[in-house]
Amino acid sequence: MPQTLTGAGVSPGAGYGPARRLVREVPRPDPDARHDGDAAAEADRAVAAMEETARDLGERGEAAGGEAAEVLNAQALMARDPALADDVRKRVDAGAAAARAVSEAMAVYREMLAAAGEYMAARVADLDDVRERIVARLMGAPVPGIPESDVPFVLVAEDLAPADTATLDPERVVAFVTREGGPTSHTAILARSLGLPAVVACPGADTVTEGTRVLVDGATGDVSLEPEPGTVDAAVAASRARADAAARSSGPGRTADGHPVPLLANIGGPQDLPAALENGAEGVGLYRTEFLFLDRSDAPGHDEQVAAYRSVLEAFPGGRVVVRTLDAGADKPLEFLESGGQQEPNPALGERGLRMMRRLPETLDAQLAALAEAERDTGAYLQVMAPMVTDAADAEWFAAAAAASGVAHPGVMIEVPAAALRAGSIAEHADFFSVGTNDLTQYTCAADRETAGLGRFQDPWQPAVLDLVAASAASAADAGRTCGVCGEAAADPLLACVLTGLGVTSLSMGAPALPLVRAALARADLAQCRAAAEAARGARGPDEARTAASERLPALADLGL
Amino acid sequence: MPQTLTGAGVSPGAGYGPARRLVREVPRPDPDARHDGDAAAEADRAVAAMEETARDLGERGEAAGGEAAEVLNAQALMARDPALADDVRKRVDAGAAAARAVSEAMAVYREMLAAAGEYMAARVADLDDVRERIVARLMGAPVPGIPESDVPFVLVAEDLAPADTATLDPERVVAFVTREGGPTSHTAILARSLGLPAVVACPGADTVTEGTRVLVDGATGDVSLEPEPGTVDAAVAASRARADAAARSSGPGRTADGHPVPLLANIGGPQDLPAALENGAEGVGLYRTEFLFLDRSDAPGHDEQVAAYRSVLEAFPGGRVVVRTLDAGADKPLEFLESGGQQEPNPALGERGLRMMRRLPETLDAQLAALAEAERDTGAYLQVMAPMVTDAADAEWFAAAAAASGVAHPGVMIEVPAAALRAGSIAEHADFFSVGTNDLTQYTCAADRETAGLGRFQDPWQPAVLDLVAASAASAADAGRTCGVCGEAAADPLLACVLTGLGVTSLSMGAPALPLVRAALARADLAQCRAAAEAARGARGPDEARTAASERLPALADLGL
Repeated sequence: MPQTLTGAGVSPGAGYGPARRLVREVPRPDPDARHDGDAAAEADRAVAAMEETARDLGERGEAAGGEAAEVLNAQALMARDPALADDVRKRVDAGAAAARAVSEAMAVYREMLAAAGEYMAARVADLDDVRERIVARLMGAPVPGIPESDVPFVLVAEDLAPADTATLDPERVVAFVTREGGPTSHTAILARSLGLPAVVACPGADTVTEGTRVLVDGATGDVSLEPEPGTVDAAVAASRARADAAARSSGPGRTADGHPVPLLANIGGPQDLPAALENGAEGVGLYRTEFLFLDRSDAPGHDEQVAAYRSVLEAFPGGRVVVRTLDAGADKPLEFLESGGQQEPNPALGERGLRMMRRLPETLDAQLAALAEAERDTGAYLQVMAPMVTDAADAEWFAAAAAASGVAHPGVMIEVPAAALRAGSIAEHADFFSVGTNDLTQYTCAADRETAGLGRFQDPWQPAVLDLVAASAASAADAGRTCGVCGEAAADPLLACVLTGLGVTSLSMGAPALPLVRAALARADLAQCRAAAEAARGARGPDEARTAASERLPALADLGL
Repeated sequence: MPQTLTGAGVSPGAGYGPARRLVREVPRPDPDARHDGDAAAEADRAVAAMEETARDLGERGEAAGGEAAEVLNAQALMARDPALADDVRKRVDAGAAAARAVSEAMAVYREMLAAAGEYMAARVADLDDVRERIVARLMGAPVPGIPESDVPFVLVAEDLAPADTATLDPERVVAFVTREGGPTSHTAILARSLGLPAVVACPGADTVTEGTRVLVDGATGDVSLEPEPGTVDAAVAASRARADAAARSSGPGRTADGHPVPLLANIGGPQDLPAALENGAEGVGLYRTEFLFLDRSDAPGHDEQVAAYRSVLEAFPGGRVVVRTLDAGADKPLEFLESGGQQEPNPALGERGLRMMRRLPETLDAQLAALAEAERDTGAYLQVMAPMVTDAADAEWFAAAAAASGVAHPGVMIEVPAAALRAGSIAEHADFFSVGTNDLTQYTCAADRETAGLGRFQDPWQPAVLDLVAASAASAADAGRTCGVCGEAAADPLLACVLTGLGVTSLSMGAPALPLVRAALARADLAQCRAAAEAARGARGPDEARTAASERLPALADLGL
């Protein structure tokens, strides 16, 4: 009988294929390993592995494009360095086995790099990755990272880090299964942004062996091992029908009775614009600007910032673009900020977001000035919001900073429970609200997004979270402000209808989720959305809330919701 | 002109005396240090330092009493070990300087101890402390830990850990000033439990040099260096007047018009009973049971638990005793629990409290069974509450576990925002609520209790926190349940009146705070408390809330509030 594992379904759809496990560890060569005597053959073997690794990295770079390509091509150059090859040959001549010779030669290289100042030192991790790849090849071990495969596969891992997935080919991966993570973990967010089915917090993931045929249901959280062919066909067909319905949806977001709910995209930079436009985003609801500031020893200059912001604003003439100011903290450290708080026992409860900017106002002011300049003549409607606003004093401080820099529409993210509870006094200093449901859920239920085993509390369907969204939307309406949602909750088609019923005025999500949300909204009228919202808030827990909402939205049944 | 530093006043009162700094680091003897040649004199010097250290530790043990005495006497025996003295003499004969000889000899001792199995290995930290004390003496450096002083002093530190203060003599310390910490940090809680003035989150604390005369105002957060004698006299007189007014208060807690507000004590074990009784506690509102489980490789047995619980219940015949079940987590790890979560990125948002007990039900069941048995024939009214309850499903699970073990009155702590927001559905499964304002504030404002610089958000006067207390009390009243507060907010006399006005039915606090809270309540009638509560909730921030409440409670002015 086929075995079924259970986890949390965090990105709907069905995916089927052989399991491939993410490899993180590479065996270390024995420090005394010697070859059998044929030094020339052994040296050729070492240099061949270096060349194969270089070629592989180059190919991956070509496939990845953008910044990833630059990193990968630089790595290929390291693997192909003639001085390195000479050193390896010398060590093999002296008796060292190939893997050991590469490892030792690259250790010398590494020390030089580490000593060569800040910029080069940051490349040490890239060099280590190159060494591991060559050594793995020479020792016949799997190469670390996303496994290579000629056929589409299900990626199984303990957890996925951004670094693991930089070069991931969405054409080759059909689903994710991880042991760790919650509905708002990076794995889940990545899966939704790629439109791939995913199951996280699945303790059985450890037992899935390489090559096992796996069917992943990203809605129910079921992971079936060696399923019957009939089961696979039915699941894939249902998933495809849903995708087709979504693909047929078009135009601006609105309910069946025409109540407009602008559908916007969450983006991390200009590179995400094509997907946003392709999926019919009416604007940008969350432009995360951290990517501009990552991996550099000083802040990006004025012109660089203006160019990055302008390219996004120009993509939506007449549309809305909501930019979130730099959201750094001990959990998202930035090299050029002396973050000070790296030792915080609970970084999620620490000096993050606006709290850090209040200590470093010159960084915020420079960003606001660049935003104000970028908006000019683009025809877009720029809104700028601060993360981690906690009380009215925060909102007032940010509004003053925005005004001083020429930003006309300052707003706040509602992600701290205190801000939702006191949204009325915050609205006096904000042009708009945007509810960040991921962090709001994390704080409201005191449950870390990244900790496994707390799934019930990491669920935006928790009625307490719906209460706070409703309170925020009501306070916004009272003050004549808009209140969007830019957390992952907006990407859940059923919940999108409930949020609309709670009074949320726009929804922003990873671009691939837009069509299905658009299709769901188009099937429900506003009264049904309100009834579903009321029913969900009347529930005692997230599952009950989902069921209650679903019963009030029967027209979504053909989407499998 | 006298200089004034500013921090957060977290325990009211005035304290004046010379600054003494907490010493944590001890210089390491040079590993090649040799003496001048007179080996016998050098060896005598080493052994004398060992003997003086032993005598000092023994005296501290006698002063501390209880378990601290056992630890300190064991340390004295280590310092006085004749085999150790012989080894030190041999090393000095071979040329080593005294400090180096002690350090090396004790390193050997340490290795033996570390290898001698789990129980002895736990003593290694004690041995290290002994070595540091002897070495510091020999090198003329300050002895680590609370400084010694013949006169009462102001203790200045980066932060205070429980270990630093185990043997602290409250007669010798007149106030605390720390650079780190917030209103709900351990330093603040300790200060209030000892009734000492304290200022935390004071960045200038680093600049206070040993011996500077310091006046600490634990209400305003002002730390005056070398103040005028007149200033000192006035501050100390006002503080004394307040203490006198508090001392004259007696009887059960009630407002001026007789509305009863039972005043209960927070305790950590039977050792805290004398202070509770002395200060007129009407019962126990929070019995933290972690202390029974600390520093041991297996859980305490049934009889040991029954005895500990019974001794507390017997102290309050006819009174109420509220016990909190084991509250462990990655931030409060217990050796005998494979906590699993030690790697949590944000332990405060992790698998703590009831969440851990749901994974380890046998530990909870054993505790509940011991509590049920301990209650018999004591005449006390036992209530048992679970920490970190997040939703109705949690409360229902705990109520079932309590019923199965014969505990008649299960309740829940309200410390997660979701629980406060959804108190109505939780009340169906709880005999009573107890609001933990420390954690509730931390989560509501997403601000770690232990992180400096977030003081404004760690303040239970935040109107959003008052909203959640009000919601909890209202839900309890609707369901015919009681709703106490057992967080540190209850120890603030002004806030105690506001909490009463919000509908809170009992207040539990560190015992030394009871008299002043009793005196404050006796000066305000219920209508004034309600007006103060309404005014505080109408405020936009904590300072405004305090001022607004104070204006509605003019009768508290003679208490300096």
